[in-house]
Amino acid sequence: MNLLKNKQEYFMKMALREAKIAYNEEEIPIGAVIVHENTIISKGHNQCQKLNDSTAHAEMIAITSAQNKIGSKYLNDCELYITLEPCMMCSGAIYLSKLSKVIYALDDKEKGYIRKSKEKINKKLLIESNVFEDESKKLLESFFFKLRS
Amino acid sequence: MNLLKNKQEYFMKMALREAKIAYNEEEIPIGAVIVHENTIISKGHNQCQKLNDSTAHAEMIAITSAQNKIGSKYLNDCELYITLEPCMMCSGAIYLSKLSKVIYALDDKEKGYIRKSKEKINKKLLIESNVFEDESKKLLESFFFKLRS
Repeated sequence: MNLLKNKQEYFMKMALREAKIAYNEEEIPIGAVIVHENTIISKGHNQCQKLNDSTAHAEMIAITSAQNKIGSKYLNDCELYITLEPCMMCSGAIYLSKLSKVIYALDDKEKGYIRKSKEKINKKLLIESNVFEDESKKLLESFFFKLRS
Repeated sequence: MNLLKNKQEYFMKMALREAKIAYNEEEIPIGAVIVHENTIISKGHNQCQKLNDSTAHAEMIAITSAQNKIGSKYLNDCELYITLEPCMMCSGAIYLSKLSKVIYALDDKEKGYIRKSKEKINKKLLIESNVFEDESKKLLESFFFKLRS
């Protein structure tokens, strides 16, 4: 159990590192990594401003990058770590890519898929949340405070 | 009214032409075009197999291409024509890109967003459906018949 906790905390720290890259690039600070057999196979951070692309969410970038890396459109046996609960678009991409597990830090009470979707992303998909939620929250709060001031 | 019908049929024909390109490339035949001020600014067809990317739906390609073309992540005053009801991922992308109108040909009773989402994509978004639904249905049926035989 401690090993699992350590593992999850390690990979979520890597996702938070991605979120900090977004922060430093003046993007909403959200990060993601995809893990296969305890190895990170892709990373992504929000790049909506830089790319002028409202779909350039951390998860979308990490998912397409992982698919490219392993040469398959399905990511069975892969885990996605995200610093914020996925939105509708990203939950759809998680479904389509057949990821086996999603671990996210912070609930998104406004735009998160849980409040928008009638059903689970996928019956088989494992989901865990609230791993390092405070760290993710602080980063987002700092970003929006800076934006307003 | 007839002018609107003619316009919608013209642009849906262009989306169906994209779907046929996908068909000829042995992809699930779904096509999309985005229209701004009565001009097509982007096109897309399903490329999931070719790109090994489960997110490479016609709508996603058309949306990112349109954003790139106009240099903005928002597509206000743009209309999206699709040959099939959008899935959860694409409905999320439609929300994020602030499209003003979506016109689709055929309902997707299995994976369409209407059966999956608790709420409308966006309160302001106009949606029309069943424009050339038979043409879209025939193309999809022909694809899956060929796949099975």
